[in-house]
Amino acid sequence: MVSKSQQKQILQLKQKKYRQKFGLFVAEGTKVVEELLASNWKYNSLFSQKDHFHPQAIPVDLKTMKQITHFKTPSPFLGVFEIPEPPIVPPSPITLAVDGIGDPGNLGTILRLCDWFGVDELICSAETVDCFNPKVVQASMGSIARVSCRYETNLASCLTALEKPIFGADGTGKSLYQTQLPIAATYVFGSESHGLSKVVNGLLEAKIAIPNLRSGQGAESLNVATATAIFLSEIFRGAQSFKGDD
Amino acid sequence: MVSKSQQKQILQLKQKKYRQKFGLFVAEGTKVVEELLASNWKYNSLFSQKDHFHPQAIPVDLKTMKQITHFKTPSPFLGVFEIPEPPIVPPSPITLAVDGIGDPGNLGTILRLCDWFGVDELICSAETVDCFNPKVVQASMGSIARVSCRYETNLASCLTALEKPIFGADGTGKSLYQTQLPIAATYVFGSESHGLSKVVNGLLEAKIAIPNLRSGQGAESLNVATATAIFLSEIFRGAQSFKGDD
Repeated sequence: MVSKSQQKQILQLKQKKYRQKFGLFVAEGTKVVEELLASNWKYNSLFSQKDHFHPQAIPVDLKTMKQITHFKTPSPFLGVFEIPEPPIVPPSPITLAVDGIGDPGNLGTILRLCDWFGVDELICSAETVDCFNPKVVQASMGSIARVSCRYETNLASCLTALEKPIFGADGTGKSLYQTQLPIAATYVFGSESHGLSKVVNGLLEAKIAIPNLRSGQGAESLNVATATAIFLSEIFRGAQSFKGDD
Repeated sequence: MVSKSQQKQILQLKQKKYRQKFGLFVAEGTKVVEELLASNWKYNSLFSQKDHFHPQAIPVDLKTMKQITHFKTPSPFLGVFEIPEPPIVPPSPITLAVDGIGDPGNLGTILRLCDWFGVDELICSAETVDCFNPKVVQASMGSIARVSCRYETNLASCLTALEKPIFGADGTGKSLYQTQLPIAATYVFGSESHGLSKVVNGLLEAKIAIPNLRSGQGAESLNVATATAIFLSEIFRGAQSFKGDD
């Protein structure tokens, strides 16, 4: 059973102001909920359409799930989790930052990429979508349990303080394939529509572009998550070819 | 003005069976509609919330746009376009194929990537989501005007007939960074949940993986669109380093 007040609170958690007020967020789907539980994230309540999902899960039917889901189509599992204290992430040679990414699917996909490439923290400008937005949590496919988002009101001064060369993804830059991309550096990605902010642009060691093979006759830009994928692959490919994967 | 019957038809076009029945599909958003018009795709009707968008556009208000949009939030422009005859695409050294991609956002993003890397055609298994699905059109950001989707009921025999080595993206494969990836080859991507179909698996020259830098302790897989991005970058990076982009 889900009480009226529980239902109301769960639906309020769609909004950032209520997530901040209550210190809670919602995760849906088997994979995502399981990953958070496996990472020992504290839950406030768990709801399941199936038996034996978790000893503490409250059994609910499809109708109830439809009333509390944040999505068009409900998942069999929904968890209300506590937003954790920001973890202390040990310094890493590579720093990844995003400057004003508004699309939650893109931020979630970037978190999944960070997880894949072993990047434990993503620095986000204050204008970037909240990482506990339900669509970010969903698109991260559980990687939010391992990659922490650090929101900085002054992204530029935060990046400067790291004292590493800063590279920005920018369609007008030098080819990615013709530039040494050190692992010990900071890489910043802006939104597709607005690019990098002026102040961040002023800090760059270089602008780096993924060359367009149609020489500008095709797509105008790439989706920021696919661009990040290509950058991460290119940055780490050298390190990996010595690892002996086969 | 939009008549009741027009509104009904536009909303029916959310479904593949009606798109096939009427030979029409819907595109929304300034960028996507403009790209289709620029590529001389035939339209059946255009609707605009703003003046001077197009001489043939029917002016509508926000309320009307909300009644005909296929999305939660309407765009200022909506076009009903004719599904074109499948174009004859000249043979290309590289062939890209997808095997059962169900998520429309992923297919649209892959089309945008094909466009960026100069791949004019994407071969799709019959189970792959319809490329005129509104979310595919949207995510392609207009690349659907330049990259054609060829649906094949028998993907395996179609790929065999190309007589090129076939490489499949698969998490259990050999590292992408330790394999020669020729441009003159076929690359197949399966869905995140089901992978490549058994019959396609049987045709592979090799399975190729993007190595997980957390050695399996992090994300279980990558989103198929970001995986495709990394593959395309890796395949074309050699060709590009001679192009002299700066």
